[in-house]
Amino acid sequence: MGRITAIEPLDIRFPTSRALDGSDAMNPDPDYSATYVIVRTDVGDGHEGHGLTFTIGRGNELCVAAVEALAPLLLGADVEELCADMGGMYRRLTADSQLRWLGPEKGVIHLATAAIVNAVWDLYAKRAGLPLWEAIAALSPEHFVDLVDLTYLTDVLSREQAIDIVGQAHQRRAGTLERLRTEGYPAYTTSAGWLGYDDDKIRRLCREGVAEGWTAFKLKVGLDLDDDARRAGIIREEIGDDRLLLMDANQRWDVPDAIAWMQALSRFSPLFIEEPTSPDDVLGHAAIARALAPIAVATGEHAHNRVMFKQLLQADAIGYCQIDSARLGGVNEVLAVLLLAARFDVPVWPHAGGVGLCEYVQHLSIIDALCVSGKVDGRMIEYVDHLHEHFLDPVTMSDAAYRLPSRPGYSAQMYPATLEAFRYPGGSVWADPRD
Amino acid sequence: MGRITAIEPLDIRFPTSRALDGSDAMNPDPDYSATYVIVRTDVGDGHEGHGLTFTIGRGNELCVAAVEALAPLLLGADVEELCADMGGMYRRLTADSQLRWLGPEKGVIHLATAAIVNAVWDLYAKRAGLPLWEAIAALSPEHFVDLVDLTYLTDVLSREQAIDIVGQAHQRRAGTLERLRTEGYPAYTTSAGWLGYDDDKIRRLCREGVAEGWTAFKLKVGLDLDDDARRAGIIREEIGDDRLLLMDANQRWDVPDAIAWMQALSRFSPLFIEEPTSPDDVLGHAAIARALAPIAVATGEHAHNRVMFKQLLQADAIGYCQIDSARLGGVNEVLAVLLLAARFDVPVWPHAGGVGLCEYVQHLSIIDALCVSGKVDGRMIEYVDHLHEHFLDPVTMSDAAYRLPSRPGYSAQMYPATLEAFRYPGGSVWADPRD
Repeated sequence: MGRITAIEPLDIRFPTSRALDGSDAMNPDPDYSATYVIVRTDVGDGHEGHGLTFTIGRGNELCVAAVEALAPLLLGADVEELCADMGGMYRRLTADSQLRWLGPEKGVIHLATAAIVNAVWDLYAKRAGLPLWEAIAALSPEHFVDLVDLTYLTDVLSREQAIDIVGQAHQRRAGTLERLRTEGYPAYTTSAGWLGYDDDKIRRLCREGVAEGWTAFKLKVGLDLDDDARRAGIIREEIGDDRLLLMDANQRWDVPDAIAWMQALSRFSPLFIEEPTSPDDVLGHAAIARALAPIAVATGEHAHNRVMFKQLLQADAIGYCQIDSARLGGVNEVLAVLLLAARFDVPVWPHAGGVGLCEYVQHLSIIDALCVSGKVDGRMIEYVDHLHEHFLDPVTMSDAAYRLPSRPGYSAQMYPATLEAFRYPGGSVWADPRD
Repeated sequence: MGRITAIEPLDIRFPTSRALDGSDAMNPDPDYSATYVIVRTDVGDGHEGHGLTFTIGRGNELCVAAVEALAPLLLGADVEELCADMGGMYRRLTADSQLRWLGPEKGVIHLATAAIVNAVWDLYAKRAGLPLWEAIAALSPEHFVDLVDLTYLTDVLSREQAIDIVGQAHQRRAGTLERLRTEGYPAYTTSAGWLGYDDDKIRRLCREGVAEGWTAFKLKVGLDLDDDARRAGIIREEIGDDRLLLMDANQRWDVPDAIAWMQALSRFSPLFIEEPTSPDDVLGHAAIARALAPIAVATGEHAHNRVMFKQLLQADAIGYCQIDSARLGGVNEVLAVLLLAARFDVPVWPHAGGVGLCEYVQHLSIIDALCVSGKVDGRMIEYVDHLHEHFLDPVTMSDAAYRLPSRPGYSAQMYPATLEAFRYPGGSVWADPRD
């Protein structure tokens, strides 16, 4: 017996704007931040759940306040019962009608939901003594689908269809797992292509990337077409024709501009253009995809819930489905989107970077491979080499692939020293701006 | 000369759940609430801007905190310059990249944007000595369109097209205004149809409504089909075949359920079904509209920004465009949606009720008639008879129509006694729950 005794949010911010890491056409000076949640119990087994959502600085305090508003929905819950019905756990957090009004299922309240849900899953996996991917892969197809809120999805995905999808993946599971253990999960790198970097730095980072074995590189575009063409030329020169070039506009364009701009960059043969326009514009993405084929459209980093992904898939708007582990309502809603993507046979390429997103999405892509799509080929996880040093169980990369995490939990627990130093506004990093 | 010296948010909540006013299938016990903003200047003319956004209780404190996060973007601004470029004012509030991440343009941060934008417009109109509708109707078509952020809309609406729409409405303006002054703006009533009311109360309220001259009545549906049919039967019996019956499901259904449920209720000949499913589901609304025609689909109360409305219109998903004065980013974004609706020739029927929404949308529909659609026929504003007593300049109804507001400002300033008594959690109403 034991109960949830505390859901404690922390405001953690990293002063990344000082070096222009993470700069893009819409976000010139982000301070990568986390609303970090610690779930405590009185079970007495020493386990805490640690989870987070990701923001880029100002306003992180709103997500912290939203965690405080949601916390009463789980406080006092019996831990065993909660872990036995993690689908019910999710619905408890999203069904409060007064708080739902603030979204529904979007914006600050949904980001905070993600932080709590992710923390509870961390607790769940630690209690199971397994990394999250393995804890979830251990579930039957029926139990897996019980985790998902199918509300608003049944026009394209019934419970029976969902169970069937998971059941089919299970049949191939042993071989897939063997392959993942041997080769890891393939990744692409965004580290070379930030908008704030100069040409020499881009060239140097590409050269290093090729030497390290990377086969796919992402470039941020959308501020100036001549600059984009010059930088794309540098990257193509360095990576050659056989490696993949990805482009990301971070919502910079209207629909006609996106089409014209990318037609001008099409000679660099990008695989996809990511976030060409408003993340809310399903029909706009579909129009862009039709106009630019065979260049595909990718999006998802700001697609705020399963209903948006349903439509992006229904409308043939995306060729690559970029789930976000902190924008969606945590693990449960990501599983819903994995099922939708499998239903429409669109590969999942998770958004990562930020703070802890690489640590998170490795689990989610492994779950996709073992339990949902059943596939690894034609799929990659984004990789950015920022801020991993703050985590107890950081990602392990080799040969441009994520190695399977093996520690119990969901891998996004930060060191106590980090939680102390980067706490906003009281932490030492913020008190002394020279740090 | 003078500057913005304070943007002060207040957490105001009305304990409406105690009487089940406002109860519907998704919101069983709302406490109608406002994040209320007072904009102060040092101009010395005695004018303050008062504005609000609407929530239903818990979480209102998050919108208050979001106003505090946004306030620095306008604090210290020159009041004259701000009022000379109200389009720029809007973009200052929505362009902060770090705060934008929390939406973008949705959820808590966008609700807070609405409260501030609405308050600044109240200040603008008071300085002009005019009711808001008249202050905006005084602008040239070019200046009117300058108020609107056309970002993400240019695939369907260019600046030139927008100016042309306003210019055409201007030509009919004198006649439209004369008609509005004589007849008022037509309204429908939601007061009879709340889910928490019993059959006798519904029957009595319908009878009173008919006697008062109402010609259109809205019923909340979606919890139990037999109940809905019985209640719809009572309303039809009372209002007869010539008056309009509207239905509102408040997002209760999945797409197939919406179609089946409304086919079962079609014998009561509703004009439209409002919010049949997730407000994010543009394609779902379109599918429902196709299946149920000639019963139309209406939505907008939770459509969070102009990009969502653009798509609802593009996809032929809505026959009635229900702008919300507090869910959209205040006056400026509502004007964008009025233009989009005119572009697609879909009538605007604003969502109202809540706290202050009737006070707001009367201005917006008058602006629509004078400056955008140029039409009144086939249009109605929702009316709910709650909470008007708290406003200095409440709506005036006669013959089931809104009379034109004549006091300077945007009509949602509350009495100081209300701001004191209903302040949460310290106000007397909350300190003494028997009140």
